Amino acid sequence: HKICVLPGDGIGPEIMKVATQALTVAGSKEGEQFEYKECLIGGAAIDATGKPLPDETLAVAKESNAVLLAAIGGYKWDTLPSAQRPERGLLAIRAGLNAFANLRPAIVPRQLADASPLKRELVEGVDILIVRELVGGIYFGQPRGFGVNEKGDRIGYSTDVYSEPEIERISRVAFEAARKRGKRLCSVDKSNVLEVSQLWKEVVIRVGKDYPDVELTHMYIDNAAMQLIRNPKYFDVVVTSNLFGDILSDEASMLAGSLGLLPSASISGSGPGIYEPVHGSAPDIAGKDLANPLAMVLSAAMMCRYDLAIPNVADRLESAVNAVLDAGLRTGDIYKEGVAGTRLVKCSEMSAELMKHI
Amino acid sequence: HKICVLPGDGIGPEIMKVATQALTVAGSKEGEQFEYKECLIGGAAIDATGKPLPDETLAVAKESNAVLLAAIGGYKWDTLPSAQRPERGLLAIRAGLNAFANLRPAIVPRQLADASPLKRELVEGVDILIVRELVGGIYFGQPRGFGVNEKGDRIGYSTDVYSEPEIERISRVAFEAARKRGKRLCSVDKSNVLEVSQLWKEVVIRVGKDYPDVELTHMYIDNAAMQLIRNPKYFDVVVTSNLFGDILSDEASMLAGSLGLLPSASISGSGPGIYEPVHGSAPDIAGKDLANPLAMVLSAAMMCRYDLAIPNVADRLESAVNAVLDAGLRTGDIYKEGVAGTRLVKCSEMSAELMKHI
Ligand SMILES: CC(C)[C@H](C(=O)O)[C@@H](O)C(=O)O
Ligand SMILES: CC(C)[C@H](C(=O)O)[C@@H](O)C(=O)O
Repeated sequence: HKICVLPGDGIGPEIMKVATQALTVAGSKEGEQFEYKECLIGGAAIDATGKPLPDETLAVAKESNAVLLAAIGGYKWDTLPSAQRPERGLLAIRAGLNAFANLRPAIVPRQLADASPLKRELVEGVDILIVRELVGGIYFGQPRGFGVNEKGDRIGYSTDVYSEPEIERISRVAFEAARKRGKRLCSVDKSNVLEVSQLWKEVVIRVGKDYPDVELTHMYIDNAAMQLIRNPKYFDVVVTSNLFGDILSDEASMLAGSLGLLPSASISGSGPGIYEPVHGSAPDIAGKDLANPLAMVLSAAMMCRYDLAIPNVADRLESAVNAVLDAGLRTGDIYKEGVAGTRLVKCSEMSAELMKHI
Repeated sequence: HKICVLPGDGIGPEIMKVATQALTVAGSKEGEQFEYKECLIGGAAIDATGKPLPDETLAVAKESNAVLLAAIGGYKWDTLPSAQRPERGLLAIRAGLNAFANLRPAIVPRQLADASPLKRELVEGVDILIVRELVGGIYFGQPRGFGVNEKGDRIGYSTDVYSEPEIERISRVAFEAARKRGKRLCSVDKSNVLEVSQLWKEVVIRVGKDYPDVELTHMYIDNAAMQLIRNPKYFDVVVTSNLFGDILSDEASMLAGSLGLLPSASISGSGPGIYEPVHGSAPDIAGKDLANPLAMVLSAAMMCRYDLAIPNVADRLESAVNAVLDAGLRTGDIYKEGVAGTRLVKCSEMSAELMKHI
């Protein structure tokens, strides 16, 4: 399996090392081999080439079976004009690979249910899959930019736009996912105000006719942001636009109390997908052996399951993560003083233990 | 004081009756008199005139010192095309009165701290003021509508646009508010992706130069949605666009566990403002004497404080609300079984008790 490896910035290289090692070990047990090609993205790419996504990186990504991405960005590049910042590399690779469906599970791991800011009874057993459209909407819509209005005032503007086929393909991904899970899909929009949301809702309803076994509901984004904390167990699969998905998936990830265990997949349906942890590059702890590698490892597991179709390797990685958590190992981000049977460990110890369990 | 009274739909008329009575009683103690002019809006207006905001209502509103609005909407009108629905009346009166600054306090009342979905230690003492721009952005931006793209596919689109003066005036409202409170302002945007947000951030920073005593920070909307649950006490005043404010203020209101005590003000700086509870029209309990009138009464108090400049009347209303809560009275929405010293009451009993305390 040809993997394009993008360590990126901050803690990226450290956690990527753990993930590729875990993959290699798990693969060897199952007779699967991985070929890693490491490329530049984000701040590291800006420093080396002046561009957040060098052409070569995109070319290698396109020729791979899947892309494993750690994290990008850091203080160092925060003062660059926004069109040249590390995040642009992320947007460019999503668009370049047409990775239109971002799947973000929001799960509260039973070992960490007490870490949630929400009361335990509300979050225990929460298992939400957020399906976010990733290459359209206001992130990429035209026209956009700066100008002057009829009064002579400076304006900034961005266009939120979706076409029928764009909405249809993301809806199908969401309905298919719901069909394999709790069979409930909630489409989130702002159709009481936005035309783009009205088309969204109309198309989702039409696609839903092909999935009579999936219960389809609709919620306005403001209400969804509220219900996600009021009663998170209400949700099974959520499908929404790029911008609303950005907001809701970050909010949902907080249900777990920490981003340290949350993977994500951005799939295209045809070419390679992008697999990355939900957390960022954490520049403040980079290089100090303090990073939590587990979300990166779980992202590798998602890659095995979705793009590579080797669920046995995915199972092995996921069981090992469960095992180290059951054994009480906690990196700083998920450690809470005074919890019986747990122990604060460094990234290196966490990974050594993980390899044993694989 | 000339008040334009808009009871609207659902529980609207019931809670409006309590609020105007409370105002009259509180005013009489302080030598202030109110003249109420009741007009139609929302579903009630659609039924009577075919329009969610009749011209007459807007005319009366404009000639008043302030507008008191209860709630609009209901199942009955849900199947109308969106351009003719009750919500349109709300958008139209905001725009018609140029009520550009929506102030939504998110406070967790000490009497109800246990009602929050969040752990008590996280929400106790939370006191956030969200300042949402209300008559611009993607809610009103042009162009918007439906069309066909170059591939021949149907599209829906909406434009998020802000001009420099629009951002400047809402920023000033937020900085002024912060100055009178904790002196910390967090501006929420998505400037790593949206041009409209880049202008937003630039202008807020420039306006901030006039408020050196207020600490200004910036947060992306996805991160803000997360931090609002992770560490709500971080926030003092938040300023943001129409759409992000819609989402964040609803999310923030859930910190209190119930919308039953949350008022809001939408002010224009020159003409009359609109004062309304954050909750909706609750058609399922309308006419059953089950509604909670307190958020409506607190909205009337905000009106006295902001538009009418009679803080003594506002104080009287707010103290009375505190008193009935301290006395343990709870309508269904804020009642929790087994909490010592509390008692489930109907709307009528709550208001009778409230009048005594005024
Ligand atoms: C970094 C940023 C451009 C990105 C986004 O908004 O998509 C991030 O928030 C995410 O969710 O992956
Ligand atoms: C009803 C709807 C149009 C409105 C809005 O989105 O502004 C509501 O959600 C609000 O926040 O007052």
